[in-house]
Amino acid sequence: MAPAGAKRNILERLDAGEIVIGDGGFVFALEKRGYVKAGPWTPEAAAEHPEAVRQLHREFLRAGSNVMQTFTFYASDDKLENRGNAQRFTGAQINEAACDLAREVANEGDAMVAGGVSQTPSYLSCKSEAEVKGIFKRQLNVFVKKNVDFMIAEYFEHVEEAEWAVQVLKTSGKPVCASLCIGPDGDLNGVSPGDCAVRLVKAGANIVGINCHFDPMICVKTVKMMKEGVERAGLKAHYMVQPLAYHTPDCNCQGFIDLPEFPFGLEPRIMTRWDMHKYAREAFNVGIRFIGGCCGFEPYHIRAVAEELATERGYLPAASVKHGNWGAGLEMHTKPWVRARARRDYWEKLKPASGRPKCPAMSTPDSWGVTKGHADLMQHKEATSLDELKPLFEKAKANKVLFS
Amino acid sequence: MAPAGAKRNILERLDAGEIVIGDGGFVFALEKRGYVKAGPWTPEAAAEHPEAVRQLHREFLRAGSNVMQTFTFYASDDKLENRGNAQRFTGAQINEAACDLAREVANEGDAMVAGGVSQTPSYLSCKSEAEVKGIFKRQLNVFVKKNVDFMIAEYFEHVEEAEWAVQVLKTSGKPVCASLCIGPDGDLNGVSPGDCAVRLVKAGANIVGINCHFDPMICVKTVKMMKEGVERAGLKAHYMVQPLAYHTPDCNCQGFIDLPEFPFGLEPRIMTRWDMHKYAREAFNVGIRFIGGCCGFEPYHIRAVAEELATERGYLPAASVKHGNWGAGLEMHTKPWVRARARRDYWEKLKPASGRPKCPAMSTPDSWGVTKGHADLMQHKEATSLDELKPLFEKAKANKVLFS
Amino acid sequence: MAPAGAKRNILERLDAGEIVIGDGGFVFALEKRGYVKAGPWTPEAAAEHPEAVRQLHREFLRAGSNVMQTFTFYASDDKLENRGNAQRFTGAQINEAACDLAREVANEGDAMVAGGVSQTPSYLSCKSEAEVKGIFKRQLNVFVKKNVDFMIAEYFEHVEEAEWAVQVLKTSGKPVCASLCIGPDGDLNGVSPGDCAVRLVKAGANIVGINCHFDPMICVKTVKMMKEGVERAGLKAHYMVQPLAYHTPDCNCQGFIDLPEFPFGLEPRIMTRWDMHKYAREAFNVGIRFIGGCCGFEPYHIRAVAEELATERGYLPAASVKHGNWGAGLEMHTKPWVRARARRDYWEKLKPASGRPKCPAMSTPDSWGVTKGHADLMQHKEATSLDELKPLFEKAKANKVLFS
Amino acid sequence: MAPAGAKRNILERLDAGEIVIGDGGFVFALEKRGYVKAGPWTPEAAAEHPEAVRQLHREFLRAGSNVMQTFTFYASDDKLENRGNAQRFTGAQINEAACDLAREVANEGDAMVAGGVSQTPSYLSCKSEAEVKGIFKRQLNVFVKKNVDFMIAEYFEHVEEAEWAVQVLKTSGKPVCASLCIGPDGDLNGVSPGDCAVRLVKAGANIVGINCHFDPMICVKTVKMMKEGVERAGLKAHYMVQPLAYHTPDCNCQGFIDLPEFPFGLEPRIMTRWDMHKYAREAFNVGIRFIGGCCGFEPYHIRAVAEELATERGYLPAASVKHGNWGAGLEMHTKPWVRARARRDYWEKLKPASGRPKCPAMSTPDSWGVTKGHADLMQHKEATSLDELKPLFEKAKANKVLFS
Repeated sequence: MAPAGAKRNILERLDAGEIVIGDGGFVFALEKRGYVKAGPWTPEAAAEHPEAVRQLHREFLRAGSNVMQTFTFYASDDKLENRGNAQRFTGAQINEAACDLAREVANEGDAMVAGGVSQTPSYLSCKSEAEVKGIFKRQLNVFVKKNVDFMIAEYFEHVEEAEWAVQVLKTSGKPVCASLCIGPDGDLNGVSPGDCAVRLVKAGANIVGINCHFDPMICVKTVKMMKEGVERAGLKAHYMVQPLAYHTPDCNCQGFIDLPEFPFGLEPRIMTRWDMHKYAREAFNVGIRFIGGCCGFEPYHIRAVAEELATERGYLPAASVKHGNWGAGLEMHTKPWVRARARRDYWEKLKPASGRPKCPAMSTPDSWGVTKGHADLMQHKEATSLDELKPLFEKAKANKVLFS
Repeated sequence: MAPAGAKRNILERLDAGEIVIGDGGFVFALEKRGYVKAGPWTPEAAAEHPEAVRQLHREFLRAGSNVMQTFTFYASDDKLENRGNAQRFTGAQINEAACDLAREVANEGDAMVAGGVSQTPSYLSCKSEAEVKGIFKRQLNVFVKKNVDFMIAEYFEHVEEAEWAVQVLKTSGKPVCASLCIGPDGDLNGVSPGDCAVRLVKAGANIVGINCHFDPMICVKTVKMMKEGVERAGLKAHYMVQPLAYHTPDCNCQGFIDLPEFPFGLEPRIMTRWDMHKYAREAFNVGIRFIGGCCGFEPYHIRAVAEELATERGYLPAASVKHGNWGAGLEMHTKPWVRARARRDYWEKLKPASGRPKCPAMSTPDSWGVTKGHADLMQHKEATSLDELKPLFEKAKANKVLFS
Repeated sequence: MAPAGAKRNILERLDAGEIVIGDGGFVFALEKRGYVKAGPWTPEAAAEHPEAVRQLHREFLRAGSNVMQTFTFYASDDKLENRGNAQRFTGAQINEAACDLAREVANEGDAMVAGGVSQTPSYLSCKSEAEVKGIFKRQLNVFVKKNVDFMIAEYFEHVEEAEWAVQVLKTSGKPVCASLCIGPDGDLNGVSPGDCAVRLVKAGANIVGINCHFDPMICVKTVKMMKEGVERAGLKAHYMVQPLAYHTPDCNCQGFIDLPEFPFGLEPRIMTRWDMHKYAREAFNVGIRFIGGCCGFEPYHIRAVAEELATERGYLPAASVKHGNWGAGLEMHTKPWVRARARRDYWEKLKPASGRPKCPAMSTPDSWGVTKGHADLMQHKEATSLDELKPLFEKAKANKVLFS
Repeated sequence: MAPAGAKRNILERLDAGEIVIGDGGFVFALEKRGYVKAGPWTPEAAAEHPEAVRQLHREFLRAGSNVMQTFTFYASDDKLENRGNAQRFTGAQINEAACDLAREVANEGDAMVAGGVSQTPSYLSCKSEAEVKGIFKRQLNVFVKKNVDFMIAEYFEHVEEAEWAVQVLKTSGKPVCASLCIGPDGDLNGVSPGDCAVRLVKAGANIVGINCHFDPMICVKTVKMMKEGVERAGLKAHYMVQPLAYHTPDCNCQGFIDLPEFPFGLEPRIMTRWDMHKYAREAFNVGIRFIGGCCGFEPYHIRAVAEELATERGYLPAASVKHGNWGAGLEMHTKPWVRARARRDYWEKLKPASGRPKCPAMSTPDSWGVTKGHADLMQHKEATSLDELKPLFEKAKANKVLFS
């Protein structure tokens, strides 16, 4: 049964103090299901395999999501080209198909459709502001045509590019969210989370926050820093968080990309549903009201967020008919010691074993001793061999010119 | 493109030396997607949410599965009742719906439909052979009516019950697989894997093996023991294995059910795709030719099995268009150190970190100091409280009567 | 063979740019040998079992120590009483015996004798400055009588008490070291390491630094903060570090005392000799020249420090005749794969396994949610029961009165 | 205070049902103290640094040891030569000095002196039985001259060589112990522990057992197998065990030598005193009555054994005056949560953290894929380079000739 607030605008909901639950990360979930290629990470499946994308939307809706994000990550024209997309479908077709799928499923329940743009190769290649904004504008045209409910600019490592995106998205008249993929150390030019947030709010964002790259607790901490910055500046905003579903205590400032396990060995880091209860509670306590997920989130992770916040929201998600509260489904198990697991205290205290005695608990992130500000150098050089690139790096480090 | 052998009988394929790839475990995968309740683990979703079950079948087909198992685990009438199934659908409806879904997707590719039965509460409650066989017969009627391609009796902890199942299934005239959920220590009455296999072959099984309860390497080892037993007895059979996708080096003889992490804290144990390459190779080397998965297997795990055996099979699965060989999709990554991960050697040697420094590598399985032979006592007592049950256990142990 | 600088004053040595190597922690080493009781940690063994204390001095001398610290930790009269010392020996006898042993062994090589005082129960019980200084004065009288070469005030959690100690020790005219047992968060009243160092230098300390409570890398980092504080203040000092020989990445601000493993389960954290090489190099690089050890250091740990700095010092310690450089002693091993371990690269890269698959990598420090400023409350209450104490804590926390 | 049975013969004690506590491993303990070189592992310190050896004897005596083993490990003439001993002292001088030190300290308490011989390079070089026995005889002459109380032949990987040693030692008329450094898989020729024990008893050993190479639980299990073998054969013997103080769950059949951490990275595996309580109890329960330690044992480990068995023995060791029962010394700690650790239950349940989040729990033993039977090849080749040796290995493996 849908709650009273159904179909109202996201800002109306947030202004009314409601919790809005996001969905999970589509590229990782669909990679495991066989529809997205790791590396390019592009969303052509929206056009190629609509049934798979539709089903994933439905699962998140059922799990409690109030937001169906269009599956348009990395779907800007420059990115699709850059990643070698030589498919049967144009960028516009992919973006349109993604809008249709999101809308179809959103209409099956109490969900809004959010159009999404993310960082572009054009920015990283130092194209002009006009050019970069042109890229966003082309995607926005589809979202306007398809009349999405609001817009999200997400997965930006440089606040400047995110500001440009917000400025473009604002022209639609729709509510705009701005979400960076940074941690407590700030963006890749060293702009602090608080300063990033202030700049994004000033650029016109209604909701600011963090997605991807770090685990839930680190992301919540970073949003807290954003909120403190906004409040110090005497501004107002709503806050969002859509973190990884992986434990990443060992990340450096560039997040899980630099972990040796990225992207094909992250399994031992996958969070349990009980970890998600803690995350949801912490995010709520910090004052975040748009709470979702990114890479690694499966429908049951979102359901756990919705179950943790069921009292505040006033209802359980549809998928909870297939889930006993805190393990209650085990109460009928044939073994008494398994029945003994049907309680909150058990799962809250459990320290789950890895089953991998030859593996460590933490890794050392990869890098060549450079952390901040090197993104430009690196990202200009996509096709360059390692051997060719290393001396450039050494020189750049020696000169301290390229590194902020 | 489908290979030459499409649509031939499973025995024809195995006799011809082909590899048959199974699918993954539906109850765990659909639990995460929100359609199966952990605890009961019953498959009413086949009737309730056919789109979700169909999609999962398609993903496994696309990943390389040659077998679509009907989603009929725990779908015997006694189990559905026992687990509190008071749904809109009868057992027959669920079983029929499951057959239709499996057939629909199997016909989209080179896959066979396998009807499945599993262990029953009736056996564990010491019902007569006739009664237990009646349960299997009722399910078989559906499979015969729907004309599945072959039958699998799987997830049996007692070889005796599996023998009864095989005897019933043989009456259909279809090929019959028999798969136990035991480890190297044998069934719950202590019958060794070798002796179990001999009894199953004598009962009429064409293919024998192991599914669930243990990790791939332990399951392969157990099937090897079965094979040695069959060969020592001068018999002939084909072999199958469908293990967990979890590392379980710390299990006792009853498998992952007794691990403290079962079923809601198993995430850190999830195997990577590279672990599955090792598994597939090892299973192949041991002489197993029906190679699939059980609980924890996602489509990408099955794809990894299919990719490892691509040379032997002569083709890659459909989903490999979205997967670079051994991480090759990373070759275009913007960071040189991520590009450096685009090679087999990297992933084979990686020891993935858990990201959980406060968690151990192994757990101590739960139990009350009883391991073998206690299943009867325990499973009679489903609704009994722990306090009530413990003295019975102590007495039973003291008397050494109930424990084989 | 002793180097040129033998028997010169510690300040002469440090002013000349020499490295002075300290010894290891006697209470922990002698606890394992059966001469010190964990809990009281008092040094009556100096009088009771001089042969054991003498032998340990000799081992450190042989390992390369240039400093023989008198075994007078917790040997103030108030502490000896407080810890229930009802031995055959008075405080003066213990202190005198300790001086004699240190001198005897120092004279066997190139070592100086350092008299030592440490934090007192009197300070923690809020006794007056005059009373606390009286305690230090009584110990100092022995050190002056026995003519030690210099003085160390070490193991202070409050910089104020350390200042008082320095002021007393300065009256002897001997060089004075001041060493706090704090980490980067500062002393228990929240005074930062930099500010602590400035206050200690102003109080008259010639050498300032850190001992105990944290692992080498954390201690070195803290001394670096002290050095930066002193330099910012335009002052001059020498620096010392004598850390734990335990890995403590999981400590809170009160150090290893709060780890659940303290003091009887610390074994898995013991550092290897190769860890000590890294420590010695890092301490040297930071500009620390008095480099020693505290709890957990065994003679071979100090030898590793001396071996790492052998080039800078110009000689190896005596005990290196029983130690191949970087494992060179394995070159003659019968197994070729053990011979392959006779090289630096091998040991530098080794990630040693714990052999404990059911144990985690990190613990959660014990506490009641209070970290800073609660020492007074806690330490007034030595004999109080937990039940009695907890409400006091709750009240204190609620009032935010007692907590700085 | 010495118990009633002081100074009686070891067989009298064991026949009377008494527990005899051994000492710990001298080579590892003295390596850490700076008197033994890892690699050669020879005991010239007995003559070079008698004060260090005497002190270690005293510490073990004080910890509860009833046996002072002469520090004569690897002190056969052929080994001393082979290991490059070009010291000031002859083999006879070293052996005699070791006897004198053991006797001096044994006479300070209730301890017996045990002379010891261990495996020889002569045997591994395929010298004749006569030659090998000549080596043992020369050492025995010293032990007879110095009138030790009994003899131990220990650290043998081949039961045949141990039989020869026993036969020689029996000529002294003294009680003889025979201790192999093997695990449950048997000696390096694959002779099972049970069969080894039978052969040693038949050769004349009064006490048989295991020392070194594996952790306490594995060693106790192996002695249990020896005991079962002896009893099955209708023979009688006493049993001894002197294991490592390291956790070695990941060893292959050749024990800790093959672990990558051997010998300079074993610290994380060091057992706690509480682990030793479990060991002592388990050894006692299995029927072993001569219970001691080998490499890694420090005096406090032996004290823990003595404390665990204090009720059975009727007294605590001298060093327990410096040790509160099960952590009782913490009862007066200033912090209430540290006081809470002053109880048995706390330490028994503690799973101590490694403090090393980048290290695993288990290692993969080194080897070239050969485990049993390769000792001969390998040990003939002491000085051979790896490059030279590897093809020999490959050939030997290919031919399956050299490997039993």
